[in-house]
Amino acid sequence: MHPLFEYIKQYVTVSEEIFNNELKNSFIKKEIRKKEYFLIEGEICKNFCFIAKGAMHKYHTDDKGIEHVVNLFVENWWAGDRESFVKQTPSAYTVDAWEDCELYLINRENSTKLLKESSIFNEFILKLDEQHTISTQKRITSSLSLSAEKRYEDFVSNYPHFVQRFPQHIIASYLGITKDTLSRVRRKALKT
Amino acid sequence: MHPLFEYIKQYVTVSEEIFNNELKNSFIKKEIRKKEYFLIEGEICKNFCFIAKGAMHKYHTDDKGIEHVVNLFVENWWAGDRESFVKQTPSAYTVDAWEDCELYLINRENSTKLLKESSIFNEFILKLDEQHTISTQKRITSSLSLSAEKRYEDFVSNYPHFVQRFPQHIIASYLGITKDTLSRVRRKALKT
Repeated sequence: MHPLFEYIKQYVTVSEEIFNNELKNSFIKKEIRKKEYFLIEGEICKNFCFIAKGAMHKYHTDDKGIEHVVNLFVENWWAGDRESFVKQTPSAYTVDAWEDCELYLINRENSTKLLKESSIFNEFILKLDEQHTISTQKRITSSLSLSAEKRYEDFVSNYPHFVQRFPQHIIASYLGITKDTLSRVRRKALKT
Repeated sequence: MHPLFEYIKQYVTVSEEIFNNELKNSFIKKEIRKKEYFLIEGEICKNFCFIAKGAMHKYHTDDKGIEHVVNLFVENWWAGDRESFVKQTPSAYTVDAWEDCELYLINRENSTKLLKESSIFNEFILKLDEQHTISTQKRITSSLSLSAEKRYEDFVSNYPHFVQRFPQHIIASYLGITKDTLSRVRRKALKT
């Protein structure tokens, strides 16, 4: 079964036939190796990708050259930069493969076309955006209202697979806490 | 002209006739007074609202009883809690009127119906979600990568009207910085 079909049918009612006829050909399979770039800061995000296998991470580099991890992705996540993709402007982010990846890419033209022509794709994107809005609201609330300790606990309980696949300094950056704080929090968590 | 029509036509091509026939009746006008609640933590968010006049703020209360401002809203913004609205589960947020407000409310039933039946509404929500995704990504990146000083500068330059309408302690909470830090940053900004 096509991995994208398997994923999409969790969100919308769609037959394999409709998926094959309406959606499948708008996506191109691409394999990238660990450390290879999917998007480089300053370039236009021409494609969005569905991750069928592997892990990626997205970061922004500040004026001092420090990298700030803004997103972590594993299988069944979408990666790219929405602003750059929509407006076709240079991206403020870099996205690269943290592990070897199998991706399904869709470009802006195909995405716009599907949104206009396919009610299934439309319904799917609405659901995806809805879920995304809910999870980013939670992330913002947690960054404003929780201690570093509680943020890490929540992260481990919500995304246990991320802790296994990304190193501590990447998770610390994603959570907006220093590596030392994360080490302290982890040591404390192990003791209890 | 209906304030919602004026707003929606900035996003999608729609005539006043179609707006009146397809969309208008799904929204109910409601006026609420300053300090009145639109949503109370623990209750289900039965309606989402478009703010035609006034200002609102949304906050989460932590275990210690401290309120954390997660969103500020003025005219032409939408307020509510998406998760509670979509899943019909108790909300983790309170939304209240910071000034007297004129609102246009839509309930879950009407929203679901419009999404199914109105291609205009569908297109509009897609655009709104797109914009929302872009702005929350920016907010997360800024909270991870910028100093309190730069975050405040960006906030003033992006939302100058918010600075005029909300007091310092509310803006400090929204930016995730202490009131003292905000005072220091403001003093420094005034000197330069």
